[in-house]
Amino acid sequence: MRVLVPDYGPFQELSVPEVEIVTYAPGETPAGEADGLVLWMVGRDEAKRLMETRGLRWVLTLTAGIDHVKGGLPDGVTLYNANALHDRAVAVHVVTGLLGAARGLHRFRDLQRDSQWARLKPDISGLYTLDGQKVVIWGYGHIGKIVEELLTPFGAKIYGLTSKTEADLVEVRLQEADWIILLLPSTERTRGIVNAELLSTLKKGVWLSNQGRGNLIVNDDLLSALRSGQVGGAILDVTDPEPLPAEHPLWREENVIITPHVAGMTMDMYERGAAYTRNFLLMQSQGQEPEGRVDMERGY
Amino acid sequence: MRVLVPDYGPFQELSVPEVEIVTYAPGETPAGEADGLVLWMVGRDEAKRLMETRGLRWVLTLTAGIDHVKGGLPDGVTLYNANALHDRAVAVHVVTGLLGAARGLHRFRDLQRDSQWARLKPDISGLYTLDGQKVVIWGYGHIGKIVEELLTPFGAKIYGLTSKTEADLVEVRLQEADWIILLLPSTERTRGIVNAELLSTLKKGVWLSNQGRGNLIVNDDLLSALRSGQVGGAILDVTDPEPLPAEHPLWREENVIITPHVAGMTMDMYERGAAYTRNFLLMQSQGQEPEGRVDMERGY
Repeated sequence: MRVLVPDYGPFQELSVPEVEIVTYAPGETPAGEADGLVLWMVGRDEAKRLMETRGLRWVLTLTAGIDHVKGGLPDGVTLYNANALHDRAVAVHVVTGLLGAARGLHRFRDLQRDSQWARLKPDISGLYTLDGQKVVIWGYGHIGKIVEELLTPFGAKIYGLTSKTEADLVEVRLQEADWIILLLPSTERTRGIVNAELLSTLKKGVWLSNQGRGNLIVNDDLLSALRSGQVGGAILDVTDPEPLPAEHPLWREENVIITPHVAGMTMDMYERGAAYTRNFLLMQSQGQEPEGRVDMERGY
Repeated sequence: MRVLVPDYGPFQELSVPEVEIVTYAPGETPAGEADGLVLWMVGRDEAKRLMETRGLRWVLTLTAGIDHVKGGLPDGVTLYNANALHDRAVAVHVVTGLLGAARGLHRFRDLQRDSQWARLKPDISGLYTLDGQKVVIWGYGHIGKIVEELLTPFGAKIYGLTSKTEADLVEVRLQEADWIILLLPSTERTRGIVNAELLSTLKKGVWLSNQGRGNLIVNDDLLSALRSGQVGGAILDVTDPEPLPAEHPLWREENVIITPHVAGMTMDMYERGAAYTRNFLLMQSQGQEPEGRVDMERGY
């Protein structure tokens, strides 16, 4: 089995019995055929070019999202993604966002930039803990389960919604939520799902946290809802488009907290990615089915 | 039993059998004798004036700290503080600080102010989760226990230090720490305990979080250590002095994160304070000893 992998640090040391591992530098297309291709931190064009390698049976993208692969995947090639590689860091990032907003970290940072020590009256401080907060996880999978484990000791009440949750219950849960965490994939059904109509049905002052995909949210509708107070705030690790252009009004909303698509990022990510790849290749070489096979019809 | 209580919202509705409750407005000194006095959100001078009320047997300050009371407490009057009222919110605030720093929220907020979407390389991103982080809680009491409960699911290793921990072990724990959480009270022994000498013994890049008292830390020594990289960053909810003056250089350090002494603050604080006071008065009126009695010799 011949496999192409990116040449990031620890990937160069990868070694798996009976697998010929060929590393490629960013922008480079290795010569010759290959059975498998590992993609990470490449754009749509580069992914497409790499996927033109002859002989491919499978592609592993070490990401959760697959948008950059979709158009270029040749017929008959199996696609795997790597949710498990990112689940825990993403869950920690989600929980950090909720806590940071509840404890006003974004507002205090703004004040710090002006060397201002706020004198707050408790009842109008906007500060709270998560005790009793109703938190809906929309797209409740592996990440959602970890979020639930981490948030429960803080006294939050967690409600997970999956594609199998009955429509009426989805409606009720969303309407009662203090927080809605978006972990949905981007599909035809979910694109723009957070729009003016939905936002108008939510509890006044609800906060959103998006670690799914930027295009789940209709930006203009979110901005209107923020300005009217219908939405209290939003934590956005993903936006549409990405990067968010400097002139975009979302940057300038006090209660919009933007992180640049880093929910899954940690300093040891290359090590984790290489270890994940090694395990994946071991299973492939032994004829076992690795986790993460993408159902292309379902879209994730 | 006649008791003076502040007139904040829900305190006006307080009612306890066999207790005459007299509310006072800020700046006002109620006439007549009283058995007990409840203090909250008053400065040293106002506290002193209120404590001149004749007949006092006890004073309850609905704070954790007692600095504002110390000078003016008449001989023979028992002082109670209210750690339990603040423990959980403070613990949540502490944990939020660690997570926020690990996920770079302060840096992303600074970038947001400039409408900048950072493009980070993982290995030099500075981002991490708390998995495997060695967190020392210096001053391990009720708050520390809650911090431990909340942090453990994040994979942090918690080491609590109390006044009974052997000196050699204190030294080892501090030297190995990735994070040191200061929850010590302010006493003759703890003032300036975080100074150049101590800081030089710590692991390079250690982060501090101070929710104890501002004067535990020698500001100039902390600044030097931040600038040399010996200390990676500091989360300060308490400072010396408070408020921190606008010209103070601590405001302008990127990896100093300042919140204005709000660790215990929540929007429902008056309700919680009134409920705490009611329970305290019930115990007093029934001749039971309420929790929170301050040992004036020990100083907390």
